[in-house]
Amino acid sequence: MIDPAETAAAHETLDPTDLEGLRTLAHRMVDDAFDDLARLPERPVWRPMPEDLAPRFETPAPRTGVGAEAAYGQYRSQVVPYLMGNDHPRFWGWYVGNGTMVGALGAFLAAASNPNLGGGNHAAVRVEQQVLRWCAELLGFPLDAGGLMVGGASMANLVGWTVARHVHAGVDVRAEGIAAIPEPLVAYASVEVHSCHQRSAELLGLGAHALRLIPTDDAYRIDLAALRRAVHEDRAAGRKPFLVIGNAGTINTGAIDDLDAIADLCAEERLRFHVDGAIGAMIGLAPALAPLLRGIERADSIALDLHKWMHVPFEAGLVLVRDAAAQRATFETSPAYLAHAPRGLAGGATWLTDFGLETSRDFKALKVWLSWMDRGVDAYGRMMQRNVDQAHHLAARVEREPLLELMAPVGLDIVCFRVHPEGWSEERLDALNRELLMRVHESGVAVPSYTTLDGKYCLRVAIGNHRSTFEDFDVFVDALLKMADEVEA
Amino acid sequence: MIDPAETAAAHETLDPTDLEGLRTLAHRMVDDAFDDLARLPERPVWRPMPEDLAPRFETPAPRTGVGAEAAYGQYRSQVVPYLMGNDHPRFWGWYVGNGTMVGALGAFLAAASNPNLGGGNHAAVRVEQQVLRWCAELLGFPLDAGGLMVGGASMANLVGWTVARHVHAGVDVRAEGIAAIPEPLVAYASVEVHSCHQRSAELLGLGAHALRLIPTDDAYRIDLAALRRAVHEDRAAGRKPFLVIGNAGTINTGAIDDLDAIADLCAEERLRFHVDGAIGAMIGLAPALAPLLRGIERADSIALDLHKWMHVPFEAGLVLVRDAAAQRATFETSPAYLAHAPRGLAGGATWLTDFGLETSRDFKALKVWLSWMDRGVDAYGRMMQRNVDQAHHLAARVEREPLLELMAPVGLDIVCFRVHPEGWSEERLDALNRELLMRVHESGVAVPSYTTLDGKYCLRVAIGNHRSTFEDFDVFVDALLKMADEVEA
Repeated sequence: MIDPAETAAAHETLDPTDLEGLRTLAHRMVDDAFDDLARLPERPVWRPMPEDLAPRFETPAPRTGVGAEAAYGQYRSQVVPYLMGNDHPRFWGWYVGNGTMVGALGAFLAAASNPNLGGGNHAAVRVEQQVLRWCAELLGFPLDAGGLMVGGASMANLVGWTVARHVHAGVDVRAEGIAAIPEPLVAYASVEVHSCHQRSAELLGLGAHALRLIPTDDAYRIDLAALRRAVHEDRAAGRKPFLVIGNAGTINTGAIDDLDAIADLCAEERLRFHVDGAIGAMIGLAPALAPLLRGIERADSIALDLHKWMHVPFEAGLVLVRDAAAQRATFETSPAYLAHAPRGLAGGATWLTDFGLETSRDFKALKVWLSWMDRGVDAYGRMMQRNVDQAHHLAARVEREPLLELMAPVGLDIVCFRVHPEGWSEERLDALNRELLMRVHESGVAVPSYTTLDGKYCLRVAIGNHRSTFEDFDVFVDALLKMADEVEA
Repeated sequence: MIDPAETAAAHETLDPTDLEGLRTLAHRMVDDAFDDLARLPERPVWRPMPEDLAPRFETPAPRTGVGAEAAYGQYRSQVVPYLMGNDHPRFWGWYVGNGTMVGALGAFLAAASNPNLGGGNHAAVRVEQQVLRWCAELLGFPLDAGGLMVGGASMANLVGWTVARHVHAGVDVRAEGIAAIPEPLVAYASVEVHSCHQRSAELLGLGAHALRLIPTDDAYRIDLAALRRAVHEDRAAGRKPFLVIGNAGTINTGAIDDLDAIADLCAEERLRFHVDGAIGAMIGLAPALAPLLRGIERADSIALDLHKWMHVPFEAGLVLVRDAAAQRATFETSPAYLAHAPRGLAGGATWLTDFGLETSRDFKALKVWLSWMDRGVDAYGRMMQRNVDQAHHLAARVEREPLLELMAPVGLDIVCFRVHPEGWSEERLDALNRELLMRVHESGVAVPSYTTLDGKYCLRVAIGNHRSTFEDFDVFVDALLKMADEVEA
């Protein structure tokens, strides 16, 4: 046993022995980050890591340390140049946000004070509750709705599914499990729904087959007549329809289902209505886009990804559940070591761990709170509107270029197109566009991603970028056309 | 539509118009955080938020901003003084880490560059893979084991459960769901297991009843004979035992099950073996504690919480799965928009989203990577050993004090005890200790938490604190005894 008379001077902690040395390094990190931000457009969007760096990431666990300065040096030289690049003005891949410096500083402050938002009576919980209330307000939800910040929309959607299963099971599904439910539960979404919904159906023990994928119209919105038919057929066959997922911005094409019509259908058929708003839930901040969301305020639950079009640094998922009591009833457990007290730190009426799956929870809300207090949410609406305008700008250019083919109507800020030399077979077109995507990435000029629409491989530009200029899209198309000439030749 | 000829000068983004102003503020944030750290022991551990501040957290969403400086000012005045306090040397509540400044800087760097670790070929993925490999190495797992960083052990345990269900279902449970499994699946853990395991059983559609809670011995370790009997009884009754959870540090008392014996039992009975190591998985870093973990290296999967005793800022959960292919087979989906490419950013053999529930994933691994590179993991072993020694120091003091009663053997670094005036009824003792807990919190002297052992309410000191000195425990006990006198009087 260490001598209890040990003095403070001899007291080793994980804090630096040279606190002022680390302070100096921290200031350098801040300056590097600001310098990187100022020089962002000069940098290639992405570049491949040289293979000779690979062994650096296969070293054994460090038993003794090299110090923070040397560790940071390795980070700057071996990691920073080869990151994803989604902070760049010409990153339009998948659907990710850029982040912001204020958000990153929020992440630092949250980690420096390091509260746990699983429970307890402390101010960080109030901040998360305020962010939840702000989202409820902006979406037309009751201000006392339930909700929770989570990693991302995959988790937020899972919370929506789990509450729906709890409410509609007709048995004590928490205790008895799926096997106790007499009629199989069935959920519905369009074929364009994100793959995380399949994961939710699988995880909850319903099975992927319990998620019916309904066809879409020409604009990739769910076919409501087909949806209604499917519900009736399942009911006639002895199954129990319980949930419809509406898309507020599909991942492939940005399509928004007719949420108001789905809400009507769910009311008539007594189904639960969950909206996957990972991409589009907040477009109401742009006045011209707000009408697209009509009906979202009638949902039972909504999943958001504030790290996408709201540009909060990862992770910043969020779910709202109209009926807070139902959300709590779905998840609450009461072990002795988490019992609440009337006063003290163990007090507080709401312990957020009772509303989802995590027990320990970080202070994600601070990134959001600081960012929105800083700029106000209307600024985000202006960024969204500009991205939508940029999508139409790009689509117009695609339609003007004889070598390019628009593959779907512009949905929000997503443009799907391909390079299409006259007379090429589908097979050759696929191969050509796959090769071009890789060359565009390797060039560092831009990062679009890709998808398959009606069996055809295409490039997919999902803008969601507060730094892109209109010119950035022309720079990309010019480079793409040049590469297409080279590959064709 | 905005004029595409818009110039860069007129280009509004979410970046600050006054980048140098924000840089100055960022440096102030760093200085404040370092000053707070230097003054930590002078601060009350926790204090209640004045009720007149509550309305500040109920304001509507800010449509226009107040600027980062004013937002930060509100954070400093309204939030910082009323946080949880778990960075303090006398915080021993529940089981949370303190965090470290290097970890907080890692959180800043991760958020500033903001990569998405769901997929793609970039350096952040290599860093996470390196951290996973380090953990595998330290736990005696194969270096090519599967794994994933997740929010916390609740999620890490859920991953372990989900893989176990997939492997043992005997049907295509992903497609067909629980209803297709002919014999009900049953899992086993001691009564001391964390409540998140009940949540896993519920979420997966098995139902809470599918988790059998097995009694423990006097040291709160699972009773192996009772475990074996339960397995045989379930099998005889037509149910299908599939999973045993071993505890490497229970939440109530820090007990460690006989992992080697559980591994033997699982091998004989062909059950999957998952270890919940949220608290104790890394104690092997302290040579004297390592033997307690014998057998952990034989598990099929292990859940860790690096934000507990490893002091990474929240969130830093991690799961290891021996058979990476099984983990991938449990979760992988292949939508067109996430298809991998041979080259470019869409390349990379391993997309981490295929190994768990999240699609977008933040760069949690950097906090770990920087921290371990900085100090080396052996330093963490020294902190753990000291916390264990401090637990024995506290327990010895409890046993010396006539007014105090030790309620369980010291388990790792957890001490459960109560104030016990001679001749008081159990009911009065409960009320007394509940009141004392709240007074201790309100005094700001220390934050222990509480639990119920064999029906008796007690104070629970879960040390896990790299800043505590031996003297800190005497300060706490002295204050507690004084308060006990006041309450008795």
